[in-house]
Amino acid sequence: MNLRELNIKLTKESLRKEISRDILIIQTIHSIDELIKIINTLVANLRERYGYYAPRASRTEDVEKFLELINKKIKEDIGMDLTQKDLDSIIELSAEIKNLIQLKKSKEKYIEELTKEICSNLSQVATPLIASRLIDHAGSLKHLAEIPSSTIQVLGAEKALFRHLKTGSKAPKFGIIFSHPNISKALQEQKGKAARKLASEISKAVKIDFFRQK
Amino acid sequence: MNLRELNIKLTKESLRKEISRDILIIQTIHSIDELIKIINTLVANLRERYGYYAPRASRTEDVEKFLELINKKIKEDIGMDLTQKDLDSIIELSAEIKNLIQLKKSKEKYIEELTKEICSNLSQVATPLIASRLIDHAGSLKHLAEIPSSTIQVLGAEKALFRHLKTGSKAPKFGIIFSHPNISKALQEQKGKAARKLASEISKAVKIDFFRQK
Repeated sequence: MNLRELNIKLTKESLRKEISRDILIIQTIHSIDELIKIINTLVANLRERYGYYAPRASRTEDVEKFLELINKKIKEDIGMDLTQKDLDSIIELSAEIKNLIQLKKSKEKYIEELTKEICSNLSQVATPLIASRLIDHAGSLKHLAEIPSSTIQVLGAEKALFRHLKTGSKAPKFGIIFSHPNISKALQEQKGKAARKLASEISKAVKIDFFRQK
Repeated sequence: MNLRELNIKLTKESLRKEISRDILIIQTIHSIDELIKIINTLVANLRERYGYYAPRASRTEDVEKFLELINKKIKEDIGMDLTQKDLDSIIELSAEIKNLIQLKKSKEKYIEELTKEICSNLSQVATPLIASRLIDHAGSLKHLAEIPSSTIQVLGAEKALFRHLKTGSKAPKFGIIFSHPNISKALQEQKGKAARKLASEISKAVKIDFFRQK
């Protein structure tokens, strides 16, 4: 191997080492958030299509129950007549939605494993999905470890925060962490305190995870 | 059956008859257009995820070729190391995209059959997909049959048309019909003429289809 080849090899290796595994968390949470949007869109389309045949069944709120009802193909008396082919096309769409729901579940399992491997403390404190959204928002595990607890608390609520700074409207109490059970289960008047506490725990956990890797 | 029951039965029947089968075309073209967007989004996400492992392969423009390359899992020397699980998660996403492409093809076949049944002349002149988008845009086959040829020509280009009326910018030459081979294959200076001719043929065809059904 001559000097030029060696140089190229070393450059490639150092490029490769620059990429850390937290990028996989960011990419996977993007997949999951896209899948959530996609499933919602296709379910709305399916409700539109099935609604002319069975308007009452199409209003079933629970998605999995609604998909089960479609398989039974029970026509409602007010409903439009459909041929077997028309129904097959509807059932085909509903089967694909079931696949996408499975895929979403599988990605959630994968992200759980990734966060357990890369940031186990953060994942345990924040839940795997919220941990991933925080890393995505900060740009990397490193950046998240450098952010103060008060910023972690409102990460993802930038719009409300700037409105607060500009117009003096109420300061946001929480951003991405809003959906965490510690906050959603807290009484209305306790939510602010719960968010502060959780953000502080998250801040400690992510520092432990990041510096343990170094 | 008493009078009240009979009344309810008749009302339901007349409601049911109000719905004509062209609604199926509208719903199915909505499915197809959603699927096109969904496939594009997921392919972009897949390119992002595979890009760290095989940056060159991830730039393969042809989607089906790109999906084939992923199955071969050939790591590029500049690429990041991935575990078997990481790769499995990527391949799982690529398999789902293949399913969605299949589903889109199946919906296109179904809409071809629907347009052949409901508006065979229009479908033959305009192609099944453009026929469906025109019906969707007009709201129904009936409405499309009532629209003059000059409006059909710019259906779907409303934005450009209003800009033209307001600011005197160039009038749009075509809307939805733009992607028809008669227009896309025409020389630049012939496109306007080709659009006028096609719109006129479409206008005739849809009238024949609609009034034959009455």
